[in-house]
Amino acid sequence: MGRVLSVDAGVFEQWMQRSLAACESALDAFVPEDAPAGLGEAMRYAVLDGGKRLRPLLVLATCEAVAGHAGAAMRAACAVELIHAYSLVHDDMPCMDDDVLRRGKPTVHVKFGEAQAMLAGDAMQALAFEVLTPDEADSDMAPALQARLCSLLARSAGHAGMAGGQAIDLASVGKQLDECTLRDMHRRKTGVLLQASVMMGAACGDISLAARQALSDYGAALGLAFQVVDDILDVTQDSTVLGKTAGKDQDANKPTYVSVLGLEPARALARQLRDDAHRALAATGLRNTAWLGLLADMVVERDN
Amino acid sequence: MGRVLSVDAGVFEQWMQRSLAACESALDAFVPEDAPAGLGEAMRYAVLDGGKRLRPLLVLATCEAVAGHAGAAMRAACAVELIHAYSLVHDDMPCMDDDVLRRGKPTVHVKFGEAQAMLAGDAMQALAFEVLTPDEADSDMAPALQARLCSLLARSAGHAGMAGGQAIDLASVGKQLDECTLRDMHRRKTGVLLQASVMMGAACGDISLAARQALSDYGAALGLAFQVVDDILDVTQDSTVLGKTAGKDQDANKPTYVSVLGLEPARALARQLRDDAHRALAATGLRNTAWLGLLADMVVERDN
Repeated sequence: MGRVLSVDAGVFEQWMQRSLAACESALDAFVPEDAPAGLGEAMRYAVLDGGKRLRPLLVLATCEAVAGHAGAAMRAACAVELIHAYSLVHDDMPCMDDDVLRRGKPTVHVKFGEAQAMLAGDAMQALAFEVLTPDEADSDMAPALQARLCSLLARSAGHAGMAGGQAIDLASVGKQLDECTLRDMHRRKTGVLLQASVMMGAACGDISLAARQALSDYGAALGLAFQVVDDILDVTQDSTVLGKTAGKDQDANKPTYVSVLGLEPARALARQLRDDAHRALAATGLRNTAWLGLLADMVVERDN
Repeated sequence: MGRVLSVDAGVFEQWMQRSLAACESALDAFVPEDAPAGLGEAMRYAVLDGGKRLRPLLVLATCEAVAGHAGAAMRAACAVELIHAYSLVHDDMPCMDDDVLRRGKPTVHVKFGEAQAMLAGDAMQALAFEVLTPDEADSDMAPALQARLCSLLARSAGHAGMAGGQAIDLASVGKQLDECTLRDMHRRKTGVLLQASVMMGAACGDISLAARQALSDYGAALGLAFQVVDDILDVTQDSTVLGKTAGKDQDANKPTYVSVLGLEPARALARQLRDDAHRALAATGLRNTAWLGLLADMVVERDN
């Protein structure tokens, strides 16, 4: 468990709990109960009370590191979680991964039907951009920051990021991929949105280009580490611990870091990426990066 | 045919052709050919070479009426068309309307499969917000205008707008709706995005609050007229003229303006809404609203 159990572990845990509670409360306020014809219910089911909230934590921790605009960061945290949650709803649908269990609950299409699941995902993507563009009456976020956050989020969610990665994933079932292609797929599918979480937090403050680049490197290393660990957990944990169907990638004959590299080399890669992340944090020159370091440790050492 | 064949008809036709060509060329540049694993191909199939482009024309005509930023308006025009096109892709899928013909071509899921169709729609929604938030190197759009356009588009596409309207539509199959509920459904499903097209064009310029309100009224009347005429055409035209499956709403036992009001009263309502649109234009106090007036006429008098 190493670094997480350092002297800061208790304070970190408190910061996490406080941040998670604030994020949950903000999401609860943003995701409408009264959206018509059951749409709001499906959206709330998809995004509230579930998930590790890693992306929001990255946004908030980065914002603290750069001493940025906390209100803007909370909106960015909710927006990136909405994008992540919508992608899971669509990804679970029968025409994609056809999964019935997510975060320990029936998936959205199982509970609300496929059409409502698709619409809820679509509305959640739109809501992410609504959350990033509040009226003057609701927030003192500068319009330039709103635009910057929309730009970062749209580019990480779209064809060059998450959606593009999913298209590669879709096309790769049953194929042998080399590590390079696998890395590109995962970078787009998962890594880019995790990295964007860091960069959205960074955008909430005013830091040097060099610090921004180092944070970007941190986000890239953490994003890749996340996926490598996901692939390891898929073969080493059971569904109860994961809260989703284990062994799924293997069964679907999908290439993973474990299938391409083997289990031990995959573990070594995860550790190396954690070290890369810590090195990048040191290179930011920022003082308040403890939470970001501990989040990187958490990503590598998690068991679900 | 009336007003379209006024003295301005030839000039209007030229303006339309020029605008459509410019919009097509901009979309062609924005929608990537090289998105991975066939995703770009599916996106381009869904959005290029098809459709009436009514929403882009509304953005561009409104921008001309307010003497606004033409480059920003072209981005807004492409963004709103991307949202419209993605909604058609998802709406046509088997779990929604299950349609096989759109704009005279096989629908996206028929041609590329359901998973790719869902991803293409998702990526098109993200792309809309990418297009609205260009880097400084690519555009001189002020960040405040970028943020304003993202706000307008996100709110019209999301739970309070298009996605919400589709949820009501989904829940209304086989039900009797009164005119009021039907109007609310269509306002959200179609009207809000048409109105947003006008308001995005208006945002590209600097006009009085009163003029902005009058343009909003114009957009609301035009948006509703569009749907009433759609319902009329669904029963009076055949699939060849429409480029999509005719009689579909009737077959699906969906409530329409024709089923609720009858054919002739629906026609009278469409004419009344056209008059409302023209009255609103007069109330803007803007001089250069000829194209907007002719677009309202076109919406009511179209045969597909």
